[in-house]
Amino acid sequence: MKVTKTGDLAMLVLDHKQFLFQLEAEKDFQTHEGFIRHNDLIGIPWGSTVASHLGKSFMIIEPSLRDALLHIRRHSQIIFPKDIGYILLRLSIGPDKTVIEAGTGSGAFTTALAWAVGSEGKVISYDKRQDMQQLAKQNLAKLGLEDRVEFHLRDIGDGFIETGVDSLFLDVPNPEDYLSQSREALTNGGTFGAILPTMNQVTKLLYAMEKHGFGMINVCETFLRFYKTIPNRMRPLDRMVAHTGYLIFARPTYDGDPSTQENNADFASP
Amino acid sequence: MKVTKTGDLAMLVLDHKQFLFQLEAEKDFQTHEGFIRHNDLIGIPWGSTVASHLGKSFMIIEPSLRDALLHIRRHSQIIFPKDIGYILLRLSIGPDKTVIEAGTGSGAFTTALAWAVGSEGKVISYDKRQDMQQLAKQNLAKLGLEDRVEFHLRDIGDGFIETGVDSLFLDVPNPEDYLSQSREALTNGGTFGAILPTMNQVTKLLYAMEKHGFGMINVCETFLRFYKTIPNRMRPLDRMVAHTGYLIFARPTYDGDPSTQENNADFASP
Amino acid sequence: MKVTKTGDLAMLVLDHKQFLFQLEAEKDFQTHEGFIRHNDLIGIPWGSTVASHLGKSFMIIEPSLRDALLHIRRHSQIIFPKDIGYILLRLSIGPDKTVIEAGTGSGAFTTALAWAVGSEGKVISYDKRQDMQQLAKQNLAKLGLEDRVEFHLRDIGDGFIETGVDSLFLDVPNPEDYLSQSREALTNGGTFGAILPTMNQVTKLLYAMEKHGFGMINVCETFLRFYKTIPNRMRPLDRMVAHTGYLIFARPTYDGDPSTQENNADFASP
Amino acid sequence: MKVTKTGDLAMLVLDHKQFLFQLEAEKDFQTHEGFIRHNDLIGIPWGSTVASHLGKSFMIIEPSLRDALLHIRRHSQIIFPKDIGYILLRLSIGPDKTVIEAGTGSGAFTTALAWAVGSEGKVISYDKRQDMQQLAKQNLAKLGLEDRVEFHLRDIGDGFIETGVDSLFLDVPNPEDYLSQSREALTNGGTFGAILPTMNQVTKLLYAMEKHGFGMINVCETFLRFYKTIPNRMRPLDRMVAHTGYLIFARPTYDGDPSTQENNADFASP
Repeated sequence: MKVTKTGDLAMLVLDHKQFLFQLEAEKDFQTHEGFIRHNDLIGIPWGSTVASHLGKSFMIIEPSLRDALLHIRRHSQIIFPKDIGYILLRLSIGPDKTVIEAGTGSGAFTTALAWAVGSEGKVISYDKRQDMQQLAKQNLAKLGLEDRVEFHLRDIGDGFIETGVDSLFLDVPNPEDYLSQSREALTNGGTFGAILPTMNQVTKLLYAMEKHGFGMINVCETFLRFYKTIPNRMRPLDRMVAHTGYLIFARPTYDGDPSTQENNADFASP
Repeated sequence: MKVTKTGDLAMLVLDHKQFLFQLEAEKDFQTHEGFIRHNDLIGIPWGSTVASHLGKSFMIIEPSLRDALLHIRRHSQIIFPKDIGYILLRLSIGPDKTVIEAGTGSGAFTTALAWAVGSEGKVISYDKRQDMQQLAKQNLAKLGLEDRVEFHLRDIGDGFIETGVDSLFLDVPNPEDYLSQSREALTNGGTFGAILPTMNQVTKLLYAMEKHGFGMINVCETFLRFYKTIPNRMRPLDRMVAHTGYLIFARPTYDGDPSTQENNADFASP
Repeated sequence: MKVTKTGDLAMLVLDHKQFLFQLEAEKDFQTHEGFIRHNDLIGIPWGSTVASHLGKSFMIIEPSLRDALLHIRRHSQIIFPKDIGYILLRLSIGPDKTVIEAGTGSGAFTTALAWAVGSEGKVISYDKRQDMQQLAKQNLAKLGLEDRVEFHLRDIGDGFIETGVDSLFLDVPNPEDYLSQSREALTNGGTFGAILPTMNQVTKLLYAMEKHGFGMINVCETFLRFYKTIPNRMRPLDRMVAHTGYLIFARPTYDGDPSTQENNADFASP
Repeated sequence: MKVTKTGDLAMLVLDHKQFLFQLEAEKDFQTHEGFIRHNDLIGIPWGSTVASHLGKSFMIIEPSLRDALLHIRRHSQIIFPKDIGYILLRLSIGPDKTVIEAGTGSGAFTTALAWAVGSEGKVISYDKRQDMQQLAKQNLAKLGLEDRVEFHLRDIGDGFIETGVDSLFLDVPNPEDYLSQSREALTNGGTFGAILPTMNQVTKLLYAMEKHGFGMINVCETFLRFYKTIPNRMRPLDRMVAHTGYLIFARPTYDGDPSTQENNADFASP
């Protein structure tokens, strides 16, 4: 039976409220529904229920990756789980891989990358803003993932330092300006991705990709629709998120000229 | 510069056609656009272009995980990348994790799990049909992932053999019949997931979950919409996949009674 | 040049706020941005801009049918324009038609029906609650449509009074209980429709339709996604309505037995 | 009991096949499932079942407006019912209204407009191509709606002939070139609409609208998702139409300056 221990990232759940924090001896956890001593939360089985001093029962569980991402401290828009899951598959991010991202932002995607590459993989994260990288480091530390990420405080217009990397992802407003730099960093046929909020930006990126020899270009968007969980009243929730960003995927090609036109045959391939 | 070698899983791309196969010395690769000797494909940089004997240029790249999943040989409906990416996040599948799935099916999800848990993680896959597990093993072998998966030819109605596993996923028509077995296999507060094609099945599962003490229940569906990639004519493709399956996620709880009702506050959390 | 006159339903627009009311001589219109005398709004061209006493400019326009529907006074959930437009087409509601609806509710759909059938058509609206029909009458009166609707304060379990009507629409929680009554009211091959919020209700209705000889059964849902209107930053709004209701359409058949199974060939027919 | 008569537009239904044609004495209706004499179809109750000479039972029903639109003979892309229903509401097209459209195309939208305005309303349809207007006339004639439409064979760049019309809809590739002409034709605060397949076109139109004093600009897209109708296996169809066109709505304003920016408050107003 797996038990909680000091230093673990834990999630307390009360009804639909969730609280994420690290377990530390002698500390108190405060809510509007009373406080709980961390000591009472340490050394108990995950999944246990613990009462606050006001008698409210909280369940303690290990946060999933999604839980952790949604609770990340952020100073900027983050990439959301619905997109992250699909990006990881498309870029083939997995154990032992090396991946570059720019910019670092608040570190939500950095966290997902660090999680996915494992202890033998490597994430290299570029940003021009030191404050953002500082925040990202704090977010990574909570999950014990800080050792998997190397930060560069650098303008990617000056190029990436690495070469031969498996995958590269751009979450910047003007990815079209960094395609030659991206080609130089990526291994042949490596996986390239970007996320952009507007169609105007996607248009600019597609024009630039044609010029810089990127092939197998793919543009898509993902949606996530939740349902109420009352079995005798099955229906979707009233509202949903209608837009996070457009996702663009491509491969730099060696010496070919694969058309970017109409590679839409895979609409049948969700 | 990374080069191809014997045994690698390679993808040849011609326009919008893609061919996935393992590189083997002395073999020929046949298409309607001419043949190519494997010997000409081995020892060259990934991303290179190679001509068939009819002069058609094929690009050779490493398939992404998604490419591999979409080309898997299948005797049954598979779970598609758009769902797999999100399931992995929700179940917190990552390096070094242990996960159970049932049934094995054609092994597409098995492959994704084996990829994600890495060489130190472990996938345990249950199915009653030997032919399906045989097919899954072949599919895994192509990606060199067969060592990460342990197969059990067994009716999960008789229970799972393992206990204390991090995550468990059911892709069976009647998951409501295996909830007590799932609870016994899972660690406290572990992550449970299922995929079901119809609302009637979801309803049955939700009723059963209430009885078996599953909490934090969440039901959702994912959509993926592709766009044409012609920058001066930005528009979605004409058609899209409208349904693959409903996803259900939950956590077995230790001794609590977290309501399954209305945990829909996170519609804002894509 | 078309000008406003006493009794007209008018809409004042200030930025993204909209105000709907009837023009009456000597009255004042009050907002947080100052007041405007109705007299200043009467006898001017539609589309004019009029200043409040605080100097704020309001544009006066004729509300569209959608504008009117969204501003209707309501005591209950209404059917929304995105669904109404499609229902009218599916039921073939148009000038000179006769249509039955039950229940009346707040009268939003009643209003749309009355609008669409014109001065020679007829809407017959059933409800058990007098207060709802009273509200619906007030809503219709604002648009001058009250003469086109005949109200019956009656339990439709006791049957509809009319026979041979072109179309019949049920917006009640249990339409499966009124199918024989609906058959008797409808002309042969007339158009039948219903809206239901949950899948459980749809399931019940489908079972009942099989028994009551309804054919050409069709179940669908509509979505509407808005975009920001900044041309150099084209992107959808962040949120959208994820669910209003499932729409069900069918035809009572004379003496046949058209299968209700799988009439889904028209997925290609938006 | 309503019976069929010579000249009626009828729809024969066999399983999921539908056949639309006009009833004419002495003619034969041929299918791969045998033939039926029109004489046997005339003078019978709508909704009756009639057997072909091969013994197959066909149901005869009055086509709905949607049925008629989907079966229209077309030489060009048509606007589909899912969009037409919503456009009619947004433009406030109803009995007795006057509406301009350009271009005529195959006449599907023309047909819907003619249907909706009734015998006292009027549709004015512009196109440069005589062959298209000829086809549209034939399509209208089948529904007996030809008298409600006035055709102009004319380049709308030269302006519309009418002024003071209630509504105007542009289904042309470059609506941005006809905004001043549209303003002159429309009554103050009248309703303007357009449909465009690509985001690039929408962008151009939005820039032009800002210059030409259009306000209350709204951009949206509609989706329609069908479900299988098997009550014990409720689920959406596998595929759906992912894109038909972007819809743009606006109002010409008299002398004001309503911002086009961010009028997105009504995402909650489906």
